Amino acid sequence: MSDLSNIRIDGRRLWDSLMQMAEIGGTEKGGCKRLTLTDVDRQGRALFTQWCESAGLTMSIDDMGNMFARRAGQDPSLAPVMMGSHLDTQPTGGKFDGVLGVLGALEVIRTLDDLKIKTRRPIEIANWTNEEGSRFAPAMISSGVFAGAYTRDFAYGLTDADGLRFGDELERIGFKGSEPVGERPVHAFFELHIEQGPILEDEAVEIGVVTHGQGQRWFEVVLTGFESHAGSTPMPRRRDALLGAARVVELVNGLGLAHPPLAVATCGMLNPYPNSRNVIPGQVFLTCEFRHPEAATLDAMEHDLRDGIARIAAATKLEAEVKKVFDYPPVPFDAGCIASVRRGAEAYGYSHRDIVSGAGHDACYLARVAPTAMIFTPCVDGVSHNESEDIKPEWATAGAQVLMHAVLETADVVG
Amino acid sequence: MSDLSNIRIDGRRLWDSLMQMAEIGGTEKGGCKRLTLTDVDRQGRALFTQWCESAGLTMSIDDMGNMFARRAGQDPSLAPVMMGSHLDTQPTGGKFDGVLGVLGALEVIRTLDDLKIKTRRPIEIANWTNEEGSRFAPAMISSGVFAGAYTRDFAYGLTDADGLRFGDELERIGFKGSEPVGERPVHAFFELHIEQGPILEDEAVEIGVVTHGQGQRWFEVVLTGFESHAGSTPMPRRRDALLGAARVVELVNGLGLAHPPLAVATCGMLNPYPNSRNVIPGQVFLTCEFRHPEAATLDAMEHDLRDGIARIAAATKLEAEVKKVFDYPPVPFDAGCIASVRRGAEAYGYSHRDIVSGAGHDACYLARVAPTAMIFTPCVDGVSHNESEDIKPEWATAGAQVLMHAVLETADVVG
Repeated sequence: MSDLSNIRIDGRRLWDSLMQMAEIGGTEKGGCKRLTLTDVDRQGRALFTQWCESAGLTMSIDDMGNMFARRAGQDPSLAPVMMGSHLDTQPTGGKFDGVLGVLGALEVIRTLDDLKIKTRRPIEIANWTNEEGSRFAPAMISSGVFAGAYTRDFAYGLTDADGLRFGDELERIGFKGSEPVGERPVHAFFELHIEQGPILEDEAVEIGVVTHGQGQRWFEVVLTGFESHAGSTPMPRRRDALLGAARVVELVNGLGLAHPPLAVATCGMLNPYPNSRNVIPGQVFLTCEFRHPEAATLDAMEHDLRDGIARIAAATKLEAEVKKVFDYPPVPFDAGCIASVRRGAEAYGYSHRDIVSGAGHDACYLARVAPTAMIFTPCVDGVSHNESEDIKPEWATAGAQVLMHAVLETADVVG
Repeated sequence: MSDLSNIRIDGRRLWDSLMQMAEIGGTEKGGCKRLTLTDVDRQGRALFTQWCESAGLTMSIDDMGNMFARRAGQDPSLAPVMMGSHLDTQPTGGKFDGVLGVLGALEVIRTLDDLKIKTRRPIEIANWTNEEGSRFAPAMISSGVFAGAYTRDFAYGLTDADGLRFGDELERIGFKGSEPVGERPVHAFFELHIEQGPILEDEAVEIGVVTHGQGQRWFEVVLTGFESHAGSTPMPRRRDALLGAARVVELVNGLGLAHPPLAVATCGMLNPYPNSRNVIPGQVFLTCEFRHPEAATLDAMEHDLRDGIARIAAATKLEAEVKKVFDYPPVPFDAGCIASVRRGAEAYGYSHRDIVSGAGHDACYLARVAPTAMIFTPCVDGVSHNESEDIKPEWATAGAQVLMHAVLETADVVG
């Protein structure tokens, strides 16, 4: 495929598109707040649609709000090679998490058009709904439904902090499509994404060839004690749910430290009730999640979590509920797709290394229904899910370049 | 004053009024949510006004929204004997905290009217604005301004969680009066209140003769780390503000345990930011407060708090800000007023004991400008600041009866 090595994407055009999309939901600190199924998400989707249509692509939307932009292939009967990621962000997110994978894919299409390159297979760009999961947990719900990991109605029934339903919000922003989710054939799927970790930058490597994704388990914990007056309830009579929650946070941190170097464990959300200065908290809701590439380690961590919470609850006279809300096993990507990504890096002389994805990605679900691989680019200081998330333009260029190579190889160039 | 021992308040009428007021902001669990300066607070104030006016009392409102209902005395030149408390509640409050002191006072007036009893001094009922402090911290702000502990403009500038200003909300509900706060003379002040602790009920004592109020110190703590991706930020690189906050909660609990039996220490509010399941919290706001009857112990607790937070911040790579938002010394009540309360209990044969108030009360500020004392009645299981807060009708009756005796003694019955 040496001919492909002469084809170059337009890094400047890609960067301009990234910056333009970043203005939708842009924050003062230079980040992005484009929460899924909000009005700003709607605006981001509209801009993406406009770009795809001016590139002559055919748009489809399924009934989970997943968007597909199709470039015809010479043989319409063949399943498309799909590439993409997500346009939604965290509440205090950055400009590149997910967006690079969607707009990098768009840049690949634009380059093929510039050079009038035809492929035997159709090529499609995907924008997956609610990858982040911060408004509606669990994360990656729509690629999950696409891959059969969840039912559509389960997703529709999810509610956000204000009690708004996923299904209602999808309809409200006008992106509940007619195509039944999951019926679209996929020959192969490639996702370009920032690493969201420090490894590539630390080692000055340009391309991460992602061999598999870490397994993840997410939990919701409710601790119930008894709320009473902070001034006149003697210490020994207290059933302080926040004290118990504090010990759970310490426990979860310890679970991450207990399995170095790959294990991570985090409490991200914690809501005391009634959350009043002079009332002993009677109840606390908190979330915790942990990740590791080996199922046996995840089992050990879950056991220690449940066991530790039971001990904490007993010691603090609280009732504890522990609910697993998200569980998926480590994901090995497709050997052929991985090799194709590696060849892409080599074709353009980019330094590369194999890497494990610490974060979950839509590609982890797509891997259940089609041969899949991911391409990582470095990000500054490994920072993501933060308004200061940043990358260098040349990193974005390299990533999109490797994405193009892998996709063209797989879609079969016919001139 | 043996004649007074024949005068009985109407316990049934008092209870009916308590139950009627409880319907305003009444919760499913049988509690009350009548947060200060809200529309339900306005409704509670309107009902109280209606009751006072039909009892022939003269209403005044000062520019902090404090309400005064006056029953004329034989000598209008004399300063009034004042009794009262507050009608606002916690977000998940009960039916009696504060309300018993206001409606108990109303029952005293109604009884005097029934029996056509005249006093030389005028008698007034006070309803103090924002005693709870849960919507606008600090607590007891309006009796505090009345007593000169805070300026009126400081109070007006306080904002709630939604950023609404105290001054604006006071105006919005139509209770910003014309009378300058603090100019009203007070000969003596008596506050009837539920104990909000377990002691009286445990010892089966009917009346608590409150000798002084505990000192209190309230703090706001902000811990700042760095928010980043929960899946791909290795444990050693984290600056997790929630982990630091968890250790502060444990520290504060330890401060309470370190000074038994009277010390209490509580973290009531804790807000992580951005509070998303898969983001390491970059910042946490939390409140803590502690109380003790001796200033020296409060000093020691504050020192250990500041010192402990500094150590925690260093260990977790966080920045810490500690702000003292409320500080008042232990309050000794007036010997004459205390004796008068004790005589009231004896006059009707109620069992009684001296007691320290663990909670703050408007009486603690009134004590700065007038001879003051408090009367405690038991509450079930010592539970308060809770929707299940409960008392027995006979406890309410006993409290109001003792209040009446103390007030009549002080206001000087003339027939």
